Amino acid sequence: MKTMHAAATNDEQAIRELVDTWLEASKKQDLTTLLGLLDDDVLFITPGKEPFGKEEFAAGNKEVQDFRMEADIDIKELKVIGEWAWMRSFLKISFTPGEEDTTKLSGHILTILRKTADGAWVIYRDANFVMPESAK
Amino acid sequence: MKTMHAAATNDEQAIRELVDTWLEASKKQDLTTLLGLLDDDVLFITPGKEPFGKEEFAAGNKEVQDFRMEADIDIKELKVIGEWAWMRSFLKISFTPGEEDTTKLSGHILTILRKTADGAWVIYRDANFVMPESAK
Repeated sequence: MKTMHAAATNDEQAIRELVDTWLEASKKQDLTTLLGLLDDDVLFITPGKEPFGKEEFAAGNKEVQDFRMEADIDIKELKVIGEWAWMRSFLKISFTPGEEDTTKLSGHILTILRKTADGAWVIYRDANFVMPESAK
Repeated sequence: MKTMHAAATNDEQAIRELVDTWLEASKKQDLTTLLGLLDDDVLFITPGKEPFGKEEFAAGNKEVQDFRMEADIDIKELKVIGEWAWMRSFLKISFTPGEEDTTKLSGHILTILRKTADGAWVIYRDANFVMPESAK
């Protein structure tokens, strides 16, 4: 069982690093890195909208090019089960497009991740309640 | 591998039956049955609200006693991984309190389930985007 526990710990560490990489890439608008962390069949589930995949995520990220962003994520729970994992987290974002006012967004996220054949973890389903704080 | 596949199929069937039982108990406001399908540490994650557990779920269900309800759920995906499972679904509800007008609600749900020591499946995490259709 020691080996299995070590593997689980390594997987947890790999997922925590994925989250860090995701935040850094979001701040830099590094779309190539972001897309590399998504399963090809990823689905984002968000309020008041139909679930959408990788293509729509990429299109949405191309819309705003000139911005500054601060983001902080709190991983509340992370459970690895073999080639699958689920994670509950809380994300806070400060988003400033060009010369405009800063928008603060936050919300809970429930994420399903899976391990690909080459051992990398990717986001598979993302139930994302992040919204402008003013709308709450 | 045949045995594992059969077990997965039985587990899938058990989860589908849990969903049917949930809907029937919701219509009858059978709170005892509903609570029995929830893990003691269940968390519901919903828009614009802090995640809440079994006690708050029970309190919310006691508020409205006199109503009629129709509900239909479409299970879009169901994946069993050992003692855990995740499910993506779409829920439609018509809710008529007393003599008031009917409210239609709908939304996507991402659910994490787990198998208890006695072999029963229970809801563990429920990221629930169900809201009144007029609010969308």
